Amino acid sequence: MRIYADNASTTKMSRAAIDAMLPYLAEQFGNPSSPYALGQAAKNALETAREDIAAVLGAAPREIYFTSGGTEADNQALRSAAAQGKRAGKTHIVSTAFEHHAVLRTLEALRSEGFAVTLLPVDETGLVEPEALASAIREDTCLVSVMAANNEIGTLQPVDELADICRRRGVVFHTDAVQAVGHVELDMRALGADMLSASAHKFHGPKGAGFLYVRKGRMPESLLLGGAQERGRRAGTENVAGAVAMAAALRECAEHREADSRRLTALRDRLTEGLSSIPHGILNGDAQRRLPGNVNFSFEGVEGEALLLLLDEKGISASAGSACAAGSLQPSHVLLALGRAPELARGALRLTLGEDATAQEIDYMIRAVRDAVETLRAHSPAWQERMSGRAAFLL
Amino acid sequence: MRIYADNASTTKMSRAAIDAMLPYLAEQFGNPSSPYALGQAAKNALETAREDIAAVLGAAPREIYFTSGGTEADNQALRSAAAQGKRAGKTHIVSTAFEHHAVLRTLEALRSEGFAVTLLPVDETGLVEPEALASAIREDTCLVSVMAANNEIGTLQPVDELADICRRRGVVFHTDAVQAVGHVELDMRALGADMLSASAHKFHGPKGAGFLYVRKGRMPESLLLGGAQERGRRAGTENVAGAVAMAAALRECAEHREADSRRLTALRDRLTEGLSSIPHGILNGDAQRRLPGNVNFSFEGVEGEALLLLLDEKGISASAGSACAAGSLQPSHVLLALGRAPELARGALRLTLGEDATAQEIDYMIRAVRDAVETLRAHSPAWQERMSGRAAFLL
Repeated sequence: MRIYADNASTTKMSRAAIDAMLPYLAEQFGNPSSPYALGQAAKNALETAREDIAAVLGAAPREIYFTSGGTEADNQALRSAAAQGKRAGKTHIVSTAFEHHAVLRTLEALRSEGFAVTLLPVDETGLVEPEALASAIREDTCLVSVMAANNEIGTLQPVDELADICRRRGVVFHTDAVQAVGHVELDMRALGADMLSASAHKFHGPKGAGFLYVRKGRMPESLLLGGAQERGRRAGTENVAGAVAMAAALRECAEHREADSRRLTALRDRLTEGLSSIPHGILNGDAQRRLPGNVNFSFEGVEGEALLLLLDEKGISASAGSACAAGSLQPSHVLLALGRAPELARGALRLTLGEDATAQEIDYMIRAVRDAVETLRAHSPAWQERMSGRAAFLL
Repeated sequence: MRIYADNASTTKMSRAAIDAMLPYLAEQFGNPSSPYALGQAAKNALETAREDIAAVLGAAPREIYFTSGGTEADNQALRSAAAQGKRAGKTHIVSTAFEHHAVLRTLEALRSEGFAVTLLPVDETGLVEPEALASAIREDTCLVSVMAANNEIGTLQPVDELADICRRRGVVFHTDAVQAVGHVELDMRALGADMLSASAHKFHGPKGAGFLYVRKGRMPESLLLGGAQERGRRAGTENVAGAVAMAAALRECAEHREADSRRLTALRDRLTEGLSSIPHGILNGDAQRRLPGNVNFSFEGVEGEALLLLLDEKGISASAGSACAAGSLQPSHVLLALGRAPELARGALRLTLGEDATAQEIDYMIRAVRDAVETLRAHSPAWQERMSGRAAFLL
């Protein structure tokens, strides 16, 4: 059995997305800026993709700006609000300690350029307290950025409440929704966020495509300077095939979202329950307020990398944290932010289910993880000693 | 007959590039940062693409950084050198007035941030005088950026000479080679440039992919911040399919380059000769020191947009200047830099041939352009009056 349980890292392109893309790789190769028929066909395809994406999000097409992915969208969102804030004499930014690195590293850069940054604490399930946000906002706050769904532990933030606080205080609110778009309902009419970042390859679209939503009345500043593409806000020949495929993927996700979400939530809970029976393990994040397909556990005495290796041998592709930080020996900054000890933060296992997951696969994964954890603990002298110590203590 | 003569704007993806791409859209969808087999297969594909591109350019794989295209590569190159220069107390940059907007707009932004920018003049064929560069370099010059081949008039700069001057003066030299890569020989061992930008869709690769070459010993600064991809210099999940397709396209271009170049040069010269027979027309750029497939003419008394419309009706896809500036009513900044009058700079016709162009197509285009120019002039009272004035003067 081969199970891909790392859908938070990347997803397989859907058939619909590939089929939508192919004509724009071959015959329909025009440059959208060209005035002749071939160019205008590309332009029309791009604008239809924009309309489709906007429709799924309850947004207007002119609120969607195509980018090369979620990282670029996050960078542009933060840089835009910061530049606009600075011109208005506002140089304070509020965010959280468990954002994606695309946000955290940009905040570090902004800090080195003179911005003040407040990182809100999160509670042990990863939730931001709306009251904490309200009291962190200052007179000179120009931006609040809180991710919609965490990439490691799937925590779904009360984005609407947070956005509401910001709106009442006149502060721009951005949400990194890279993990949320396509998987949970997001309607910009209800959500109230001013900016939102998304990445196509997280919802069965292609890598190298994403978008930034910017609410009407605001304009993002260009991060990439050059031609007048994207209404002068993102230079560079548009990735037409990527945008078209992204729109097709998102449309399909939206069509099946309710049913997929119900089914995935049930499978997720079955997986959580199964893994909870392994001794000395702990679920990271909130049991219910999390992405439908996300499960994240830490097991005492188990190194994350070793666990992944054993699971790979058993045919399971999983992750210790985020793919962007893979290979790093640092403990997860997300789990540290929840208050986990470094040892547990280093030993996390993230299983993120795809829409085609089955109950049979869930049961296989539960057995595989239990066996792997037992094997690793059996081969760990430190664990054995610790357990016999505990046993001695109990005697 | 339908002729695509706008290959400087974008090219059709080659069969080889599409075939190379497809597996990475479907089955091979792993994230290169993931440790399991599917991720490592993606990582291997990405690194093989890097090696292939490096081999074509006579570079080392670690000198190639993948980007979302030429615009991002240009932005990153300029921003990197500027940031590094500033730290060393050097804030003067030299470039030319006829660079692509990806360079010019970034220079404008840097100027507003306190950098001094000298734009070198070009002669009437678009060439930069090496002596002019030598005397423009100051003690505080941190960067020289001169494009390898101009996107409108195809002028090939003496990049090796310019790079040599910079090397001797200890100044970083960047070249925007977006129009050159794949079409003319570029060997980084001989070329001496420190940085070079390229875009896949200009050489039969996909839109949304490009790369920045940075010579060993130098490191680019990140433009996009986040994950540790591209050795920490370009964050964001890698566009694996795009990189693989780009490499396949470039390999193919390199294999056929000599033969293609010889054939295209002959066709280009045939087209130039044919269009030269149209009265009151002028070739823009140097007749020989230009890209193999590039022809650019201005015809007195003819509006570029009207000419394009008539040619489109005759089945010819052409351009008035660069696609990135299409729709703009501004005269071409490139032609103004050559000293052309605004009227001529607005009325340019750019025909850029693909590798599959035939002599029959060239002859068809010559007739079509001649007919279209005659038609437009016949319908222009201003032109008629001017001609009768000239005739009266001659009598």
